[in-house]
Amino acid sequence: MNVNPVQLFDVDSSTFSYILVADDNTSAVIIDPVERHWQRDLAHLERLGLKLAYVLETHAHADHVTSAGKLVDVTGARAAVPSGCGIMPAEVQLKDGDVIRFGADERIEVLHTPGHTAGSVSYVWRGNVFTGDTLLIDGCGRTDFQSGSSQALYDSVIGKLFALPDTTRVWPGHDYKGQSVSTIGWEKRHNARLANRSKEDFGALMAALKLPKPILMDIAIPANQNLGLPHGA
Amino acid sequence: MNVNPVQLFDVDSSTFSYILVADDNTSAVIIDPVERHWQRDLAHLERLGLKLAYVLETHAHADHVTSAGKLVDVTGARAAVPSGCGIMPAEVQLKDGDVIRFGADERIEVLHTPGHTAGSVSYVWRGNVFTGDTLLIDGCGRTDFQSGSSQALYDSVIGKLFALPDTTRVWPGHDYKGQSVSTIGWEKRHNARLANRSKEDFGALMAALKLPKPILMDIAIPANQNLGLPHGA
Repeated sequence: MNVNPVQLFDVDSSTFSYILVADDNTSAVIIDPVERHWQRDLAHLERLGLKLAYVLETHAHADHVTSAGKLVDVTGARAAVPSGCGIMPAEVQLKDGDVIRFGADERIEVLHTPGHTAGSVSYVWRGNVFTGDTLLIDGCGRTDFQSGSSQALYDSVIGKLFALPDTTRVWPGHDYKGQSVSTIGWEKRHNARLANRSKEDFGALMAALKLPKPILMDIAIPANQNLGLPHGA
Repeated sequence: MNVNPVQLFDVDSSTFSYILVADDNTSAVIIDPVERHWQRDLAHLERLGLKLAYVLETHAHADHVTSAGKLVDVTGARAAVPSGCGIMPAEVQLKDGDVIRFGADERIEVLHTPGHTAGSVSYVWRGNVFTGDTLLIDGCGRTDFQSGSSQALYDSVIGKLFALPDTTRVWPGHDYKGQSVSTIGWEKRHNARLANRSKEDFGALMAALKLPKPILMDIAIPANQNLGLPHGA
């Protein structure tokens, strides 16, 4: 049975957030929520009649601020984050292979997929993978800051994400071209940066990108390591 | 089992298009595709490994041009449209109660829901309803052109859409506030225009709106009545 998430978009930062609805229609999990949309996202949960069980982060974002802390405060949900991202206030610190349970019978598996940042994870749920900034549609996240490593990203994608079944649906953390979803099979065959490329080639390609620093980075990373809440609050 | 569509967005006209994936992962239907995104939408179908069975329209749109004709030409899919919308080149002309079948076991039921336009329909599939411009999240479509009627829209929403189960997920044709999905139960209780309002009140409210004419209207309606293809082509 094909079960998809509800995909939400932030136009300013081209960020996707996702609501995963339990099959028993009682509860949900949100992945990578964006600060300025916290009321919109609560309204979605209310309209769908769902209790928020967890707020998950794929990593400490550099381009937008999370609403995780706010959602936790308002709903009583638990924040669950990658243990390697320095997000200290989160109740649950996740490591590779951990399983998050919600609803009557939902299992989300944690895959540690470093490369965009050293702590980045992906989440696997019912034939879907939420890849954050590790694997994008026909691309991948940058690897030049926050302990990023093109070598690690290559190993994460080729060794872990491309080992998932070809029909697995890929839901990225961003898209800048209006694209929404892909599959592992398509990315294995066609991804412009990673398909049919050696680790050396990939490293050279990433080193040549010379990307500007994200405008919000110096604000966003410390804020996100505090779940988006003001420090000292 | 909760099965959601893939929801796609056009930023220019705030239009949602939807891909409904058959459970056997072989084929799909697209609802209300937008002209300028036809290549994006084909790429989605290719990435998901799906053959396009049908292109559906909820009505002849006034604010954007459809890619239906283009998608039919390129993929061999069939266009299925409401019989009351004057979209003459479409192979299948739908009426209330018709059922569209695709994949091994998929059924889409057609509900004639006039009011935004006289021909408008909604589509019901696996606990989801695609309401076009009849019912929006916390609102509804305008009723002041294209044989629109606030009386007819009221009867469509109260009599047909609100008769669906409360848990039915509502996927609108547009949203202008970043909202994505609602439920029949929530709209029955809270919709700002239609919840707990008499037909007379609703008529007065709609008559007082005095909305400007859509910029693209004189181009879009004739184009959409030809499935978005150039006339004489």
